[in-house]
Amino acid sequence: MESKQIDDETVLIPKSNSKGKAVVADASSPVVATPKATLPQRGKWKKGLAIFDFVLRLCAAAAAFAAASTMGQTEQTLPFFTQFFQFHAEYNDLPTFTYFVVANAAAGGYLVLSLPFSIVCIVRPHAVGPRLLLVVLDTVMTALTISAAGAATAIVYLAHNGNSITNWLAICLQFTDFCQQASGGVVASFIAAVIFMFLVMNSALALKKTSH
Amino acid sequence: MESKQIDDETVLIPKSNSKGKAVVADASSPVVATPKATLPQRGKWKKGLAIFDFVLRLCAAAAAFAAASTMGQTEQTLPFFTQFFQFHAEYNDLPTFTYFVVANAAAGGYLVLSLPFSIVCIVRPHAVGPRLLLVVLDTVMTALTISAAGAATAIVYLAHNGNSITNWLAICLQFTDFCQQASGGVVASFIAAVIFMFLVMNSALALKKTSH
Repeated sequence: MESKQIDDETVLIPKSNSKGKAVVADASSPVVATPKATLPQRGKWKKGLAIFDFVLRLCAAAAAFAAASTMGQTEQTLPFFTQFFQFHAEYNDLPTFTYFVVANAAAGGYLVLSLPFSIVCIVRPHAVGPRLLLVVLDTVMTALTISAAGAATAIVYLAHNGNSITNWLAICLQFTDFCQQASGGVVASFIAAVIFMFLVMNSALALKKTSH
Repeated sequence: MESKQIDDETVLIPKSNSKGKAVVADASSPVVATPKATLPQRGKWKKGLAIFDFVLRLCAAAAAFAAASTMGQTEQTLPFFTQFFQFHAEYNDLPTFTYFVVANAAAGGYLVLSLPFSIVCIVRPHAVGPRLLLVVLDTVMTALTISAAGAATAIVYLAHNGNSITNWLAICLQFTDFCQQASGGVVASFIAAVIFMFLVMNSALALKKTSH
């Protein structure tokens, strides 16, 4: 009963860094009328952001896997050949394209593995730990995807246009299908990269919303 | 000695959404010994992060400008020539390197322009607006820098090793200085890109700290 007695004296404890919010606790209903009034609205905002995060992740995973598989199936054999040589091009003839496939597959796999954490953020919109983990890993994976997309773009550009100074020929003049499919993979990868950037921004926004 | 006595009967009010943190207040002096005690510490944390942000920005700007100027000065004329042709290579013979210079110069310029916002974050560690602006723009600029670095890496790799399938020759066998300088620029750009990633993570962490 001693603890009950102490509860009767209300205690005001202003929250330190927030904008003049205070938590009021009294004896009869010690757990907080005011926060309960504003909490659901904030919860909605954060839940909305978390659901948006989940949807973005699904889209990015689809784009990344599409990029990896498109590039991974890129090959072409030309219908003419010499006595000693048949003209054949495959994605892994170019190390950059191999890196591209690996990076995009890794990004897609990461996105699938990150879905449970995203679900945790939907169920518990105020959790900060999973979000911080996601924003750090998302940043790293954004870098991976974009570097792969940039590198593949440079090679595809070279294959399309060639370069007269270095005497590198435009192989797309022969390997048309090869180049088209590789270009498609690059476009898919850029879509994944842009969605990744939105994921990072979304997470930052969600972390900010925690402060209110 | 009275306060000593009252301290013995402490009232524990658990904060609703936090990780089992509790604020301790006593009956006689309800208004706020505790928050005042913790406020400067939190301010310190955020100020520390903001100063770290400022320093990172300076380093990233230096790296980005170094990358742009190194690549921008890359040229080489070979000491031998034919009757009709002198062998000369410059960075803007390759469109990828031109993009590289532009992207890194833009990133460096953005970093310098963002310094005032970073200073605002040091002076007012609790301001959320500038930080959100910075985290969005940082993410975009990270993408720009990394795409340029990835693309230039692909070309430099090709220049070093060539590619037998596509019959692209390793021009670095002749243009050794050209290739070395270009590689140096690419390394500087990757340093800038990594610092950019830390900037984004740092901003996310700083936004998170607001929540407590």
